[in-house]
Amino acid sequence: MTDTTPVDLASLRTQWPALTHQERVDGLRLLPAAEAHDLFHTLSAADQAALIGGLSQPEAAIWMRLLPPDDAADVLQAVTPRERLRLEGMLDRNTLRETTALLAYAEDEAGGLMNPRFPRLRPEVSVDVAIRYLRRQTHKPLATLYYAYVLDSDQRLLGVVSFAELLAAPGEKRIDQIMQRDAISVSEHADQEAVARVFATNDLTAVPVLDEKGCMRGVITVDDIVDVVQEEATEDIQKLGGVEALGAPYLAVSFGKMLQKRGGWLSALFLGEMLTATAMGYFENEIEKAVVLALFVPLIISSGGNSGSQAATLIVRSLAIGELRLRDWFRVLWREVRSGLALGAWLGFIGFLRVILWQYSGFYEYGPHYLLLAVTVWASLVGVVGFGTLVGGMLPFLLRRLGFDPATSSAPFVATLVDVMGLVIYFGAAILILEGTLL
Amino acid sequence: MTDTTPVDLASLRTQWPALTHQERVDGLRLLPAAEAHDLFHTLSAADQAALIGGLSQPEAAIWMRLLPPDDAADVLQAVTPRERLRLEGMLDRNTLRETTALLAYAEDEAGGLMNPRFPRLRPEVSVDVAIRYLRRQTHKPLATLYYAYVLDSDQRLLGVVSFAELLAAPGEKRIDQIMQRDAISVSEHADQEAVARVFATNDLTAVPVLDEKGCMRGVITVDDIVDVVQEEATEDIQKLGGVEALGAPYLAVSFGKMLQKRGGWLSALFLGEMLTATAMGYFENEIEKAVVLALFVPLIISSGGNSGSQAATLIVRSLAIGELRLRDWFRVLWREVRSGLALGAWLGFIGFLRVILWQYSGFYEYGPHYLLLAVTVWASLVGVVGFGTLVGGMLPFLLRRLGFDPATSSAPFVATLVDVMGLVIYFGAAILILEGTLL
Repeated sequence: MTDTTPVDLASLRTQWPALTHQERVDGLRLLPAAEAHDLFHTLSAADQAALIGGLSQPEAAIWMRLLPPDDAADVLQAVTPRERLRLEGMLDRNTLRETTALLAYAEDEAGGLMNPRFPRLRPEVSVDVAIRYLRRQTHKPLATLYYAYVLDSDQRLLGVVSFAELLAAPGEKRIDQIMQRDAISVSEHADQEAVARVFATNDLTAVPVLDEKGCMRGVITVDDIVDVVQEEATEDIQKLGGVEALGAPYLAVSFGKMLQKRGGWLSALFLGEMLTATAMGYFENEIEKAVVLALFVPLIISSGGNSGSQAATLIVRSLAIGELRLRDWFRVLWREVRSGLALGAWLGFIGFLRVILWQYSGFYEYGPHYLLLAVTVWASLVGVVGFGTLVGGMLPFLLRRLGFDPATSSAPFVATLVDVMGLVIYFGAAILILEGTLL
Repeated sequence: MTDTTPVDLASLRTQWPALTHQERVDGLRLLPAAEAHDLFHTLSAADQAALIGGLSQPEAAIWMRLLPPDDAADVLQAVTPRERLRLEGMLDRNTLRETTALLAYAEDEAGGLMNPRFPRLRPEVSVDVAIRYLRRQTHKPLATLYYAYVLDSDQRLLGVVSFAELLAAPGEKRIDQIMQRDAISVSEHADQEAVARVFATNDLTAVPVLDEKGCMRGVITVDDIVDVVQEEATEDIQKLGGVEALGAPYLAVSFGKMLQKRGGWLSALFLGEMLTATAMGYFENEIEKAVVLALFVPLIISSGGNSGSQAATLIVRSLAIGELRLRDWFRVLWREVRSGLALGAWLGFIGFLRVILWQYSGFYEYGPHYLLLAVTVWASLVGVVGFGTLVGGMLPFLLRRLGFDPATSSAPFVATLVDVMGLVIYFGAAILILEGTLL
């Protein structure tokens, strides 16, 4: 043990990420058992696996047996196949069976999130009997300590009764007289994002998971859902920033892995952006005749990119949290077209003023046709910002319709799409307005 | 009532956002009371306020009295001062006092999220007495139905006992023998983001809120925290996309408000981006001598913007969820500098190849100095991508250090910052490498 190992729960918790393996093990050993268990249960599966991996067989077995089946499944998924065999051997037969069943589900579906242990009641027993029964049961680790689930003999879910309702009910009433029927439930194969929406819409603390026959397989509790909501938002944010989702904290990702996650999208965007060089080459004659046109290229195309990023970000998030659905696309289209034109006209007005002011103040000499140039800048901005907003607003719908994640329409992706078209709009407007004067 | 009013809970819930006020009222009236109450409790405060606002005095009073103090406070905040007086008059004296106390807290601090009603126990009573007492208490609407809080006579928090532990304990034990001491708690003035982190780190379902004397003022439950996590992520995502946080669903924001939220940032970015026109003007002679230089301007500066967006996005999110802290800035700096140079060298290599390939294949004729031009493109990309990554990675730390929200370092903001400097790096490299040949 080093001198610096923290010896109380609070500082161990805070300093955890910075501790070495040995310091973590020592810290856990020094805590009172109840606090050590507490800390252990709140660790990530990766941390739990690393901790157990460094311990001797008997000590590792104690910690493995502390895990409920859903957490044990997460740990088994975090280790090598060889280590997995070793750890599976430590579980008692019942837990191993439950854990193996959970591992058959995908990690991001309801079945992969649920705990198969939950308090069960029969509908025909009395409140007094139910309370006596639960008082004998609840020393076992259960998924939820707030609700008991009323099942028939085929394990089909009939209703739900909260512990509080149970405590408040007259002792002689039958469970089926006080239970809530039509409880909200989710299917075992529901996607975790959909499950999170069910929790958010209905303010639930726990939701039962049913198979296709209506038999109850387990319970998902809201504390797992906070993690899901957090993770899904992080994934969306990273995708919107033009990075592949990291799937791990920033400092935990190796340098090589990080380069790969960022380099992939950067290279793709770079290849797309190369089309701007081609487009610019196409208008080389115009630039040669009027170099002044080149000066406004970055200003005009970046405005399209910025307005497109705004639109894409708003729509992606609204789709993710269910505020917008696929069928709303036309309302959004109509709104974004009007927004784009209004914002473009406004930015164009600022750009117009810029040319006039610089000309009059003598900052820059745009020549005798400065007014036509100012009109070109205005018209291009209306077109480019309008187009950027349209692309940014519609791309997320298109991606979802095609079965892709809307968050792929990242700010950099939209900007790249819009840049090429922005050049065409800008030089097109210039040729139309300046032909015979500057061009 | 229209023919289309849904008459069962499930379809009423799904169709809710699309229903008119009258259809909502009719729908609620037709449901069995328990289901109507259920639906009403899961509505947003704005929806509850709108619903109550359209009802007659006696009917409105019934719904108001159904609300626990924390929800009543939210409704009172969502209505006009006049309507607020009317609704306050409907609350019983106790609830009104509790609600008024809650309204003194800021909406985004712990006190504004908590429910002041929770199950209390004295430390010296026995488990049997406690259960009998709770069985009499729990018909009242309480914040948490999972834990009882053990308080001394000054309302100071001594410990926590879960209903399940209570049910499992021998009836003659004293509460202070089975309660958990050192329960995790939050201060009444803690920020809601900090509270969300406490829930996420410790996998809690409820957390007690204490004032500075250690007296317990209320309980925050995890279902409120799911909403907080969702809202905070939405705000960050919108800011990262270069939009002021909307604070309401996309379709619920009026067209004018939407223009304002987007136009503000767009105008600021446009004004900043105007510096690119100034910078380009500064290099007008170089462009005139070698128009070919202008062709690569969008490609090179957008690469800086893209790599900067990536870095900013990763760092902002890591700061928001506590994976990174202010003091990690140097580790991040070191990592981002290396990433930026490596990614820049790689993109530069693709750009170099592009010039060589186009030249050899005859797509474009860059003249006798094409090799020097290719080197210029490579060197600029190393510089621009390196600089973009550095700015994107450090700006969020700088913003937090100065007390601003790191999410303000949006993709468009970083891109704008990097564009101007990107032009200087590009033309600087060109002058250095091409002086005497192309320039």
